[in-house]
Amino acid sequence: MTQSFRLGVAGLGTVGAAVVRMVARRAETLSAATGRAIRVTAVSSRDRGRDRGLDLTGITWFDDPVALARSGEVDAVVELIGGSEGAAKAVVEAALAAGKHVITANKALLAHHGAGLAEAAEAKGVALAFEASAAGGIPIVKALREGLPGNAVNRVYGILNGTCNYILTRMELEGLTFEACLKDAQALGYAEADPTFDVEGFDTAHKLAILTSLAFGTTLDAEGVSVEGISAITPLDLTMAEELGYRIKLLGVAQIAAGGIEQRVHPTMVPKSSSIAQVMGVTNAVTVDADAVGELTLIGPGAGGEATASAVVADIADVAAGLVRPAFGRPTARMQPASRVEMQRHEGGYYIRLTVHDRPGVAAGVATRMAEREISLESILQRRSERAASQDPHGRSGQPVPLVLITYAATEGTIRAALDAIAADGLLAEAPQLIRIERE
Amino acid sequence: MTQSFRLGVAGLGTVGAAVVRMVARRAETLSAATGRAIRVTAVSSRDRGRDRGLDLTGITWFDDPVALARSGEVDAVVELIGGSEGAAKAVVEAALAAGKHVITANKALLAHHGAGLAEAAEAKGVALAFEASAAGGIPIVKALREGLPGNAVNRVYGILNGTCNYILTRMELEGLTFEACLKDAQALGYAEADPTFDVEGFDTAHKLAILTSLAFGTTLDAEGVSVEGISAITPLDLTMAEELGYRIKLLGVAQIAAGGIEQRVHPTMVPKSSSIAQVMGVTNAVTVDADAVGELTLIGPGAGGEATASAVVADIADVAAGLVRPAFGRPTARMQPASRVEMQRHEGGYYIRLTVHDRPGVAAGVATRMAEREISLESILQRRSERAASQDPHGRSGQPVPLVLITYAATEGTIRAALDAIAADGLLAEAPQLIRIERE
Repeated sequence: MTQSFRLGVAGLGTVGAAVVRMVARRAETLSAATGRAIRVTAVSSRDRGRDRGLDLTGITWFDDPVALARSGEVDAVVELIGGSEGAAKAVVEAALAAGKHVITANKALLAHHGAGLAEAAEAKGVALAFEASAAGGIPIVKALREGLPGNAVNRVYGILNGTCNYILTRMELEGLTFEACLKDAQALGYAEADPTFDVEGFDTAHKLAILTSLAFGTTLDAEGVSVEGISAITPLDLTMAEELGYRIKLLGVAQIAAGGIEQRVHPTMVPKSSSIAQVMGVTNAVTVDADAVGELTLIGPGAGGEATASAVVADIADVAAGLVRPAFGRPTARMQPASRVEMQRHEGGYYIRLTVHDRPGVAAGVATRMAEREISLESILQRRSERAASQDPHGRSGQPVPLVLITYAATEGTIRAALDAIAADGLLAEAPQLIRIERE
Repeated sequence: MTQSFRLGVAGLGTVGAAVVRMVARRAETLSAATGRAIRVTAVSSRDRGRDRGLDLTGITWFDDPVALARSGEVDAVVELIGGSEGAAKAVVEAALAAGKHVITANKALLAHHGAGLAEAAEAKGVALAFEASAAGGIPIVKALREGLPGNAVNRVYGILNGTCNYILTRMELEGLTFEACLKDAQALGYAEADPTFDVEGFDTAHKLAILTSLAFGTTLDAEGVSVEGISAITPLDLTMAEELGYRIKLLGVAQIAAGGIEQRVHPTMVPKSSSIAQVMGVTNAVTVDADAVGELTLIGPGAGGEATASAVVADIADVAAGLVRPAFGRPTARMQPASRVEMQRHEGGYYIRLTVHDRPGVAAGVATRMAEREISLESILQRRSERAASQDPHGRSGQPVPLVLITYAATEGTIRAALDAIAADGLLAEAPQLIRIERE
């Protein structure tokens, strides 16, 4: 047997502690799979005094994670500090510069600095591995990087944020508001005290940028992702979705379109019969549409200490076994520049919920503005409130009532122009709600 | 760039032709991913004259596939002949003996001779790769072998045969008999003229044996799989399943049990809300239950030329990139012997459909025999036929009527003993139908 493979773990939070335990617990399997003993030889964390329930006997403690990254005692550095800048970035850069392999779960770091880090890894002939950075315990990075080289990918999309899916699931099943579900998610530890990063879609955008690069061989372009969160979704939207045969999920979608690649994160209507619609609670899922396999869907845990550690340990085993392949599936010099496609040019079906004044001719006025722009309507649903109906059974109460349209494929620019015209006609009592539809 | 990676493809059926085309079509991506140009340099097939629509210019033709396997012109042999013996086995053995990597889609060969072939590959330090052998285009071999080394797997189960799932889906959706659906499947090319291998579960058993070895690190034991097919499933069973909240799928299941590993293939009731229950038509799916990730499900195409070629080409890229890891995740010397657990000791819930004589006291007699063996019943459903009801509205017609029981967990031995006692009591008009229940 060759020399043992020595790991330095920077960051001993939930995931870091789980990695240290897992490497010890699975020692036999890891050595059988890789041909080498794998050992954690060094760790670093902010608070040395904290009891993590870990046996750190024989493991060197570093107060400074950058010193750990440079240490002669480690062959690979496992970065679990988090954040796109600061200590995490310094650790990864120092490790690569010192010719050490890097394994990280840090999606923000990769989304913003992935190309430069991949280049640094290539220059030194070491691995930059990040299975845990997207969709947690689901081996989607491996599937895209190594499992589909025979395929041209057309689209990759998924539920990449457990917090949002948990909130949407509870809103749907219990008829609750976004605010009420968020509060519960915070109480249960599924959402942060400041939930913006999750619920406004930025976390999903980081993960999507990584998957896009792997799927299409393009340079990372996190800034090019169009992002919209779930905070504006109402119980009424979920009820209407249910009636129309859809569920609402926060999806990250990357797709080949005319002139480039669309990258978008937004609440999405998905057909109730689709695999992705069945994914409830904190679970994640990713679907790949590709020319040879058709549709491939992976469903599993998107977060959690053990599930994330599972992905980190899979990377550790790959690297220990000598797998050093280009981080994003191809050398950075051969990655294609990412051509952005603006959302105005996105073409698809739309759910549009208008709040109109209850009076004769409003639906006709709305439909006319759509028809003028050649937007075809699949359904139009008018739902008068009981209050409006009690005030005037003939539909002339003037009360605000919902009017829901489902369109066939149209560009977002056209849809928005039609909505502007409808607003200018004075037909709307509130700003319109617009949710994109994604079909299988 | 290093020397190009030269492939010899033995077998030019649907999959073989798709592989030759895919390697050419994806040349740029394959070289970017692996650092080498990948070329098909030799092919072999039975009928040289047949037009396959392939450009074989510059590719050496071998009438004898074993000569191709030994040829100095190839670095790796892609075996797509099929069958557990004969030419396929000779080709793979000759290639490994000559120190060439082998990529194969041949589940029968692996299920029966996998251990010996893995040993031969190890002895020469070459790869034996077989992603396409189980669940076609789904990268489940990679996921089990490389994606989950941090996990102790508890259970792996899946829909591994598209023909059976197609038949069960149509039976369910259209209320048709097994025979009628089989005929349609044959007409559409989803089932062979002799369908035994698929519909009686043997194909699923071969694939399951491969997944079991990968999941648990045990030696292959295809003979140890308990196998039952779908030909005895009736439209009534599917109707009852629907009413009780289940769907019926042919599953392959491998699971840790007291004293060893259960390997079983049988029609199974799965909860309608489970991911696996959503899988309809020829699609395959595999779920892995493991301690760190919890539940991971992969859904995709189980067969078809392009989808299977996708898996073969992924293996080609891995091998070209220098990935030579133990075929079944660990060296053959470190694989654990497979301890069989007999089906009599299987513990689970059961759906039991009895055909009893319509007369008073029958349900009580059945329930008593169950209670004597401490089998608890979750539901008991008596369904009188219209004919029986019209003959005697008081339930004394003596006509055969179905009586369906759903049990809580019990061992199969106990269930069978109770059914024997019920039969001895003269309560049954027909042999009982027994379908195992698999919960998430």
